[in-house]
Amino acid sequence: MKNSFGNNLTLTIFGESHGPSVGCVLDGIAPGIPVNEEEIKKMLSLRRPAGAISTSRQEADEFVIQSGVFNGFTTGTPICITIPNSDTRSVDYQSTANLARPSHADYTAHCKYRGFQDYRGGGHFSGRITAALVAVGGILIPALNKKGIYIGTHIKSCGGVQDREFADYTNDINKLSTSSFAVLDENAANQMQQAILNAKESGDSIGGVLETAVIGLEAGVGEPWFDSVESMLSHALFSIPAVKGVEFGLGFGFANETGSTANDSFYTESGKVYTSTNNSGGINGGITNGMPVTFRCAFRPTPTIAKPQNTVDFVDMENKVLEARGRHDPCIIHRARAVVDSITALVVADLLATRHGTDWLAL
Amino acid sequence: MKNSFGNNLTLTIFGESHGPSVGCVLDGIAPGIPVNEEEIKKMLSLRRPAGAISTSRQEADEFVIQSGVFNGFTTGTPICITIPNSDTRSVDYQSTANLARPSHADYTAHCKYRGFQDYRGGGHFSGRITAALVAVGGILIPALNKKGIYIGTHIKSCGGVQDREFADYTNDINKLSTSSFAVLDENAANQMQQAILNAKESGDSIGGVLETAVIGLEAGVGEPWFDSVESMLSHALFSIPAVKGVEFGLGFGFANETGSTANDSFYTESGKVYTSTNNSGGINGGITNGMPVTFRCAFRPTPTIAKPQNTVDFVDMENKVLEARGRHDPCIIHRARAVVDSITALVVADLLATRHGTDWLAL
Amino acid sequence: MKNSFGNNLTLTIFGESHGPSVGCVLDGIAPGIPVNEEEIKKMLSLRRPAGAISTSRQEADEFVIQSGVFNGFTTGTPICITIPNSDTRSVDYQSTANLARPSHADYTAHCKYRGFQDYRGGGHFSGRITAALVAVGGILIPALNKKGIYIGTHIKSCGGVQDREFADYTNDINKLSTSSFAVLDENAANQMQQAILNAKESGDSIGGVLETAVIGLEAGVGEPWFDSVESMLSHALFSIPAVKGVEFGLGFGFANETGSTANDSFYTESGKVYTSTNNSGGINGGITNGMPVTFRCAFRPTPTIAKPQNTVDFVDMENKVLEARGRHDPCIIHRARAVVDSITALVVADLLATRHGTDWLAL
Amino acid sequence: MKNSFGNNLTLTIFGESHGPSVGCVLDGIAPGIPVNEEEIKKMLSLRRPAGAISTSRQEADEFVIQSGVFNGFTTGTPICITIPNSDTRSVDYQSTANLARPSHADYTAHCKYRGFQDYRGGGHFSGRITAALVAVGGILIPALNKKGIYIGTHIKSCGGVQDREFADYTNDINKLSTSSFAVLDENAANQMQQAILNAKESGDSIGGVLETAVIGLEAGVGEPWFDSVESMLSHALFSIPAVKGVEFGLGFGFANETGSTANDSFYTESGKVYTSTNNSGGINGGITNGMPVTFRCAFRPTPTIAKPQNTVDFVDMENKVLEARGRHDPCIIHRARAVVDSITALVVADLLATRHGTDWLAL
Repeated sequence: MKNSFGNNLTLTIFGESHGPSVGCVLDGIAPGIPVNEEEIKKMLSLRRPAGAISTSRQEADEFVIQSGVFNGFTTGTPICITIPNSDTRSVDYQSTANLARPSHADYTAHCKYRGFQDYRGGGHFSGRITAALVAVGGILIPALNKKGIYIGTHIKSCGGVQDREFADYTNDINKLSTSSFAVLDENAANQMQQAILNAKESGDSIGGVLETAVIGLEAGVGEPWFDSVESMLSHALFSIPAVKGVEFGLGFGFANETGSTANDSFYTESGKVYTSTNNSGGINGGITNGMPVTFRCAFRPTPTIAKPQNTVDFVDMENKVLEARGRHDPCIIHRARAVVDSITALVVADLLATRHGTDWLAL
Repeated sequence: MKNSFGNNLTLTIFGESHGPSVGCVLDGIAPGIPVNEEEIKKMLSLRRPAGAISTSRQEADEFVIQSGVFNGFTTGTPICITIPNSDTRSVDYQSTANLARPSHADYTAHCKYRGFQDYRGGGHFSGRITAALVAVGGILIPALNKKGIYIGTHIKSCGGVQDREFADYTNDINKLSTSSFAVLDENAANQMQQAILNAKESGDSIGGVLETAVIGLEAGVGEPWFDSVESMLSHALFSIPAVKGVEFGLGFGFANETGSTANDSFYTESGKVYTSTNNSGGINGGITNGMPVTFRCAFRPTPTIAKPQNTVDFVDMENKVLEARGRHDPCIIHRARAVVDSITALVVADLLATRHGTDWLAL
Repeated sequence: MKNSFGNNLTLTIFGESHGPSVGCVLDGIAPGIPVNEEEIKKMLSLRRPAGAISTSRQEADEFVIQSGVFNGFTTGTPICITIPNSDTRSVDYQSTANLARPSHADYTAHCKYRGFQDYRGGGHFSGRITAALVAVGGILIPALNKKGIYIGTHIKSCGGVQDREFADYTNDINKLSTSSFAVLDENAANQMQQAILNAKESGDSIGGVLETAVIGLEAGVGEPWFDSVESMLSHALFSIPAVKGVEFGLGFGFANETGSTANDSFYTESGKVYTSTNNSGGINGGITNGMPVTFRCAFRPTPTIAKPQNTVDFVDMENKVLEARGRHDPCIIHRARAVVDSITALVVADLLATRHGTDWLAL
Repeated sequence: MKNSFGNNLTLTIFGESHGPSVGCVLDGIAPGIPVNEEEIKKMLSLRRPAGAISTSRQEADEFVIQSGVFNGFTTGTPICITIPNSDTRSVDYQSTANLARPSHADYTAHCKYRGFQDYRGGGHFSGRITAALVAVGGILIPALNKKGIYIGTHIKSCGGVQDREFADYTNDINKLSTSSFAVLDENAANQMQQAILNAKESGDSIGGVLETAVIGLEAGVGEPWFDSVESMLSHALFSIPAVKGVEFGLGFGFANETGSTANDSFYTESGKVYTSTNNSGGINGGITNGMPVTFRCAFRPTPTIAKPQNTVDFVDMENKVLEARGRHDPCIIHRARAVVDSITALVVADLLATRHGTDWLAL
């Protein structure tokens, strides 16, 4: 599948940071889903760099829906969305084309594409590629909401600062949906932003952890082998540049538990089944159990920093020192949240399309 | 794809714990790969329950190669392997068929399969299903070894006991390949086994973390969107029952680093490119950089315990207490290691088949 | 996908004619579909060689359901069916292993599998591989019938003899379902059987054309690009050894028509839409229009004949004369009908699973 | 896969006839393939309506390469090509939006997309969608040529007129590559064009048969089940609007042959293997044998005609008479040839990418 993902709702991503446009094709979408350009803009604005804590690259993120939408509704045919690349200063990148920025994909792209890669601004590996994916989130998330499914992501930790846990999922997710810096505890938000500014000042960068909850998802979704909910979500999430870990429920915390402390007891109330704890993150045997699906993604610090780094010229095969240039983000975790929400929406909608058929999401 | 995985080398898994057999079909394998039944038996023996620290269910794991192998070599057509289920005491499971064992898949299977699931011994969700996958590992791993690619997995932590880090990858992986309890530090091994016995005695279970390294894998393998090396590996790994977290390189540890401390500097020596650290786990932008690929899987404690647990009868919708019955493992992490190695071999071989074509692995 | 087909209902085929077994895995089947072994036996008997007009190879076609069926119903997990190869006289094939039987796959298999192919009895290319597929038909066809969808295939032509056209689809399909030599006109049946016997006597073989109709299939099924109903059916049908042409509705006959003579006018009656003719074979723009889906498959004469043929030894690269040995069919079209019905059922069920979700077929 | 096709080289098609643009994404292409815009223009000009025998709709077919090409070479990342829709007179279509044009996809689109389809000019079912696919042909065909693989398609029959058979494949294909009306016999060309003009004058349309040959393709390409060369080609070809039959080699002609007359004898010369006839169309058991791959596609007459036709209003469910409006082609077979060539190139390149790996085509 390469640059595509999803069994019945399939997203294909294309584009380079400094080419004509980045974009994507969403195939398999139900006909009759409202497409509200304001929702798409809202999602894009959550991803867009903003203020002192982000890069100075300013993109209008003007998107064009090339196909698949007619009279304000999805037609059921593939939706192609392109986002032109307007603010591209390619000259920044030319002289360092053969210098491998540490922990970036320059060297691996060179190995994979044999020197033919578009090296400008990270090319196909730029975080900018996620913009089109977020635009798709602006279509899928409102559609899922209509089905009673809500997705919320907050910055669980950043710069050593911890946000509080999800408490009331409905309220918390609702609050996050309008928050430009997605943290549940305002004090933590301020501390995190200060940590980002500190990193920026010292020419450095920081990472963090995003935590996501999906509520309203019915029990029985997912496959044991191999398309478990964990498998599908992690497959999609690990595509996001900078994600290096994914865990569900207690995740790595399970290693320090016993069966008797970690198992989620079931109970029934008013004809429905619940678990008294949710250490499993809403998933047993790869399949949803009706409790909130919860997971966390670890983000590495942005590799681009304003400090000199040792590296190689991979064409001349010489050791070099790289002085960082170009614009960059001291932290991308607050922007990545819109990407995680959108990818989660894609995976959830895909799993439901497999279960209920292509039209279900619109009915 | 559901119960299949892989783009060019595809594994399909079938079977229920108490049906006629469990098995799998491996499609897309290069013709001309030696198939040594001793290697398959060796892999199966690493997964088989053994001694006091495992379940008392004894399976001969007699496998039958139904197709795709002729005169000791793969033919290039699909290899079907079946493993008959011999030691099945189905009577153990009947009376509790509608009781959801906490953190098992009984309830989710019921929701998904609408009451038609084979509930005996976990059915399709039984860890036993992994036996066939491990048999495939017995074909793929020697083939990868011939290409200079080696895979090693050790128990990084179990019952609060930590193993040492990988040091000399080649020696460590070699040592692990013949170890029935895959730990690098013998003291840690003894402590972990004691922890497992303690859990068993108290009718409880424990989890842990497996750490895997792949060495000898060329730079340039993997895709940016969506089939990154991380995406493909995590997709496959999260299919293993009990895996709840996957991280690469520093993984969640990145959250506490800065770009300047976490970035892997490049250097060149004798015309090859290396990184001075390997925090990225051998992967940049989803693509291998030639350094060891390293990752860790978090395993939850075995959900089956010998203590009473609150649960529900999901047919009668009544709250119940479950008294554990049936045989079980107080810990499965030492057995799961063969599964992780085999799945890793599958993903690596698949990525290489995409890059180099169907025959490459045999050439 | 290689040896697999179907998006949501996926069939994977494995096996060699003289290996332990041939078989298949059906994945994505709805849970709760009745599995009646008598129906499977009935389908297998329609495919089994019978009487003077077929090969003398006698196979019991004893099938084993290895997984995915419990208490007489599909569980929703993958169904693996194996059919052991019992009557295998491998000695027949050894001495001619490197002789390319004309129009057989010996030479192409050698090129593809680089000498590692199982050459006995055609190996993976044997028509026997279709047995497992037909067993699957014994599950899918009754399930489709319950949904009001019926599939019928008759021998449209064989040995220069033409059967009559479909007239009353319901009656004709019903008649065909119990016919061991699927012809609508009894006179034609006798003449065709005589033609087959004549071919046998002269050590030769003949081909023919099968025509299939699917009734009861709702309008709106299929995709414009690329998974049109024609695309999906032809993809599957061309896998059948010996099929060399597939046409829908008028098919190649369209070349001699004009738009005004070939177009199917629509009309409405009692709130439903029909076409006054069905030259389109029930498909417009790749999507069903609610009329019977009709298509024809051209079958080449069985390549195995009892006459000497010029050929090569592809290992020694020498010109040779091949004296036919082994058992063979003077015609396979009457047996292939069960294969076409089964494959059609697979494609139809897959298209419906995509549209209506995984469970629909059982509801 | 829906609107995508190909295992390793995947094409996704999007767009509606009267939306912003039609286009496609080609994923899995080798990095380093030259992209010559003149070659793309040449391919597009072969598909473009021209002169009296075509529709009066004039499209500039200005294409934009949005991604995947850098400095004149493919980068290896997805290539998105868009072709803006400029000459769109949408007003033509509005008043007849609910009238099912006979043998068009209006009614089936309505059933599938539940009324949300873009009905203007056939929407996603318009032949115009093939433009983007043909642009891709302008990249793939020159790349295949460099590998010694050549594809040629001629109009085998149109309006009752037959073209001559392929004789010298190399010369014939070379001749066809520069021919705007692809016929081998000039007399036949004139007669066919007259037949098209006659159809136009009488407000009618005609169909025909295209015949294609692929030469230079190595032996051993394709899969037995299910991705045979016939399966893959027919899957792709049947996506072309108007194709209703596909046959390989003798195709339906096999029905009137015997094994002894139809089998292709092998012989060897200078260490290579040939067949003395090529009734199999270069494919045995689904796999290429090194001889030219030959097939024919039957095209129905263009459904749009200038005569009144009976039909229904599928919203009001009333019988109606349709007076044809809008521009149309009296025959599309001469334009479709560029589509068949391009689709064939896609399938061939995909099969080779599976066999030889992603980079092979560029090496």
